[in-house]
Amino acid sequence: MKVNVRVIPPDREQKLKAGDNLRHALIEAGIPLDSPCGGQGTCLKCKVRLSGVSRKYTQLEQEKLSPEELDEGWHLACQVAVEEPGEVRLPEMEISRAKASFGLLGEEIPLQPNVRSLPFELSKPSIKDQRADWNRLTEYLEQTASGPVSIELPLLRELSSNLREWNFSGEALVVGNEVVALDPPGSAGDVLGMAIDIGTTTLAAALVDLATGKVVALDAELNPQINFGADVISRIMYAQGAPEKRENLQKELVRGLNQLILRLCRNSRRERGRIFEATVAGNTTMVHTLLGLEAKNIALAPYVGGLNQSFNLSAAELGLQIHPGGKVHIMPSIASFVGADTVAVILAAGLHRSRVPRLAIDIGTNGEVMLATEKGVLTASTAAGPAFEGGRIKYGMRAVKSAISSFQAAPAMNYSVIGGGAPKGICGSGLIDLVAELYRAGVLDRKGRILKPAEISTGALAKMVRVREEAREFVIFKDEKGEVALTQKDIRELQLAKGALRAGVELLMKEAGVRADDIQEVLLAGVFGNYINREKAVTLGLIPLFPLEKIHFIGNGAMDGALRALLNLGERRQAEKIASEARHIELSGRSDFEDTFLRCLSFGD
Amino acid sequence: MKVNVRVIPPDREQKLKAGDNLRHALIEAGIPLDSPCGGQGTCLKCKVRLSGVSRKYTQLEQEKLSPEELDEGWHLACQVAVEEPGEVRLPEMEISRAKASFGLLGEEIPLQPNVRSLPFELSKPSIKDQRADWNRLTEYLEQTASGPVSIELPLLRELSSNLREWNFSGEALVVGNEVVALDPPGSAGDVLGMAIDIGTTTLAAALVDLATGKVVALDAELNPQINFGADVISRIMYAQGAPEKRENLQKELVRGLNQLILRLCRNSRRERGRIFEATVAGNTTMVHTLLGLEAKNIALAPYVGGLNQSFNLSAAELGLQIHPGGKVHIMPSIASFVGADTVAVILAAGLHRSRVPRLAIDIGTNGEVMLATEKGVLTASTAAGPAFEGGRIKYGMRAVKSAISSFQAAPAMNYSVIGGGAPKGICGSGLIDLVAELYRAGVLDRKGRILKPAEISTGALAKMVRVREEAREFVIFKDEKGEVALTQKDIRELQLAKGALRAGVELLMKEAGVRADDIQEVLLAGVFGNYINREKAVTLGLIPLFPLEKIHFIGNGAMDGALRALLNLGERRQAEKIASEARHIELSGRSDFEDTFLRCLSFGD
Repeated sequence: MKVNVRVIPPDREQKLKAGDNLRHALIEAGIPLDSPCGGQGTCLKCKVRLSGVSRKYTQLEQEKLSPEELDEGWHLACQVAVEEPGEVRLPEMEISRAKASFGLLGEEIPLQPNVRSLPFELSKPSIKDQRADWNRLTEYLEQTASGPVSIELPLLRELSSNLREWNFSGEALVVGNEVVALDPPGSAGDVLGMAIDIGTTTLAAALVDLATGKVVALDAELNPQINFGADVISRIMYAQGAPEKRENLQKELVRGLNQLILRLCRNSRRERGRIFEATVAGNTTMVHTLLGLEAKNIALAPYVGGLNQSFNLSAAELGLQIHPGGKVHIMPSIASFVGADTVAVILAAGLHRSRVPRLAIDIGTNGEVMLATEKGVLTASTAAGPAFEGGRIKYGMRAVKSAISSFQAAPAMNYSVIGGGAPKGICGSGLIDLVAELYRAGVLDRKGRILKPAEISTGALAKMVRVREEAREFVIFKDEKGEVALTQKDIRELQLAKGALRAGVELLMKEAGVRADDIQEVLLAGVFGNYINREKAVTLGLIPLFPLEKIHFIGNGAMDGALRALLNLGERRQAEKIASEARHIELSGRSDFEDTFLRCLSFGD
Repeated sequence: MKVNVRVIPPDREQKLKAGDNLRHALIEAGIPLDSPCGGQGTCLKCKVRLSGVSRKYTQLEQEKLSPEELDEGWHLACQVAVEEPGEVRLPEMEISRAKASFGLLGEEIPLQPNVRSLPFELSKPSIKDQRADWNRLTEYLEQTASGPVSIELPLLRELSSNLREWNFSGEALVVGNEVVALDPPGSAGDVLGMAIDIGTTTLAAALVDLATGKVVALDAELNPQINFGADVISRIMYAQGAPEKRENLQKELVRGLNQLILRLCRNSRRERGRIFEATVAGNTTMVHTLLGLEAKNIALAPYVGGLNQSFNLSAAELGLQIHPGGKVHIMPSIASFVGADTVAVILAAGLHRSRVPRLAIDIGTNGEVMLATEKGVLTASTAAGPAFEGGRIKYGMRAVKSAISSFQAAPAMNYSVIGGGAPKGICGSGLIDLVAELYRAGVLDRKGRILKPAEISTGALAKMVRVREEAREFVIFKDEKGEVALTQKDIRELQLAKGALRAGVELLMKEAGVRADDIQEVLLAGVFGNYINREKAVTLGLIPLFPLEKIHFIGNGAMDGALRALLNLGERRQAEKIASEARHIELSGRSDFEDTFLRCLSFGD
């Protein structure tokens, strides 16, 4: 049975099948919907306001939406099954929306993109004015484009016939100082750009109308390289010394990006041939694999990769399916483990302009720590490893259906499972919750040891501790089909990650000569913003004991930074400055690293 | 039978077959020999000094070589049949040699090429110095290369493994500001460049060692586009509006250039993969067809082509088989019929620096006139057409075997035939000789009319005039197999060309306000230098009545200019200045053109 649903914007009647998932049905119908988690109910970005359509709230919606949102009729589209006719209101996907999504810090970015559409109306050739076509156009554009422009051969080949067909007027699409496309006069074609964040696990992209600065579509996709290894090191190992394997990594990544481009364009009803530039943030290994560079030296001491500078190239050279003359700007990196994604976070958070001490921590598959003071920005990379994302954990899994995503120990044990039903494993956020809650409830001690049942005061929790292979473990769930448990080894993994991250924070503070009290703001980016509870981060001692009001989540700061570099050339220059001026502290090179690390393994403080 | 011949340089014993043509045998043996005419005995550039080998002189050698040269044992290799053992001394092909070949005006060009080989020895990466490989190299090169450098992706992909294999030292081949190749340390590979002149009829190229400035090989080849039409207009007509035909023209031209490259490299035992840059001069239509641009608007009023500016692109994009990262610099043009070849001639002749009035005339398939005064350079293009090269002439042919190449009317009729034997036609130089001699001998009057036999005083010549199809013609040769004659219509063709060229000279002088007496020097370039006798040019009135000592041949000035642009960036910048500052006079746009043209049709004065 089909039901009529009015979708605003674009304010049109849409026939949807009863029983269908609303998010899926909208995307199928070509309506842009921001859902980087792919409909798993974790990113909370597919919020829509319903009248009719569905009258039920799922348990997840009730947990994740605020009382005000519930009152106002907001739902998570990914949780809604279409039931009856009604109305769907989508949030306005403007730049202010992108801010909300990417955690832009309340600041408008003035539009000054690298892509410009320059209308031209040339004087006609005559015996008195015999300038050749390209000379004629370039002299005109040199004034409007404030500087000399160049052109590539394929476009130059079409110039003479285009100009004559269009009576010597039209619009020149200029990227940087190169004319990459010509439009007939008055065609008013879209001028689009893309900001891309290449994460080890997730590819995220925003499609932007560069004439208005509006984000017209947002989407994310698993990085298909995941088939070659979950973390950067395993992918580096896979490809090392084998050019054809490097090519595999490159091709898979580009394939993923092209899928993303296709979906962004389909959902926003735009043409990918109208995308003229993409800016790319990502960790150094991702940048190397995107470009097909040998990445093995990133993983070998002294950890020196092929490229940290920014890099401009043609989209065609990469195989990226945007306009054939389109360009790609890869943002600069600071060091092998402090990549373009970190530069983008610093840019987004404005750390480089900070006059007071501010700390930022970005946790993805790795953890980067940034400390801004009036003397500049210090960075460190910590081998936090994949534990925060559920990696190397016995029952670890990605945040997909059947993963435990949050956990409470008191007043009674309670946990949520993505998609409901029996849990099959624990994702990153679930792991942090579990360990923090078990520590707080006295199941674990400061050193991370699972206590004997007799030492645990809460009987219900004590009962769930058992011994397997001479080590204790905490059983969260067990039925005839399977079980989910947290092992002593899992806790050690998380402790190593926590110790590394915290040691990074401590050593940067020491290097800068600031104490925790001096720090005015702590920004948590990456997986933190999406999954980890501030309070639990403090409980575990991932970060020093800051007052909670100083701690702010900025979500995917890397994406935000890439967007800034796309929208404004001044921001792009700032990124260069950040990359060249930030001082990177190589922790493994410090004599005080090991002591600090060992001290930081304990939970608390 | 094989005979031993010692060839110096390279000073080695070579076995040559008795009876073989020496030029051919040397080229086959991989020994560089300059012979742009392809062995027709016309360019006089394959001069070699023999002891033994051959004891005979051909009639052509006796005519073309000076008494001193004959005394010293100089021969034209193309005229020599190998007879006996002996020694061949090749001329030193240095820059001074190139000067002689290309008519450089006695001035050394300081070496400052766009291609540089920069040795580097980088500090090794360490925990204290974690700069990425490209950052490390680029920071080093920025100092030596005095400015930022870029790199393309394919080379960047090899950088990390190269640097480690070479212990972080080596040599960077930089073209402009781009690193296009990397050599291992101490490899001392050749650094070569090419200067190319693309003529409508002939492709000429010089292979240059950019480390020394020496020309290591020179060669020429018919432009294979000739299959699509002898002149630019017929090629433009062939390709107009049909992209696949434009592609044919482009491909054929590049095929010809690649043959030339292959031969230059084989003859000089160099690798084409070590050629890093080519500079290109040529008329505007040739530049358009090389780049695959639509050229039809060049031929249609108001004669405005696609591109007059200089253009830089990668050799790979053109399909030019030099180093895969190699670059091509196309020199700028002034107007549709005053191309990069004319800019190159002006550069070579130093007209742009002239403080006194100097006139230059370049005749190829078209005729360009340049007049330098202290106020700058004026240029005009004259529709001289292909008559000077034997085109549109009843028995016209190229300067190949059996063409009449020179002619004398007095004291007795005498002519030379290329390769000897019965003549089959008349080439350009033969035509000029014929008409000038017949005019001087009173067979033609000032208006170009062939007189009635009764009006001709020399009986022998009078007998050779006959009437065919109600017009008179002059029969040079006739036997049972065929004949060669000069028709009244042929003379009209030459007159049109002469009238156009002379009108160009007169109108530029008028425009600049100088009289013939003011002109301090007249430079004749192109076909003039190779074929046309100064005196005959004056006799016919191709040029005003200048004292012969003011008239100088500069040979292929375009090739010389391309060579200058290859060897010295300052010269390349001068070419840009010439192209933008030269004032082009469009003759067809002038009200006084027709009168002047009609007045200039007559022979003499």
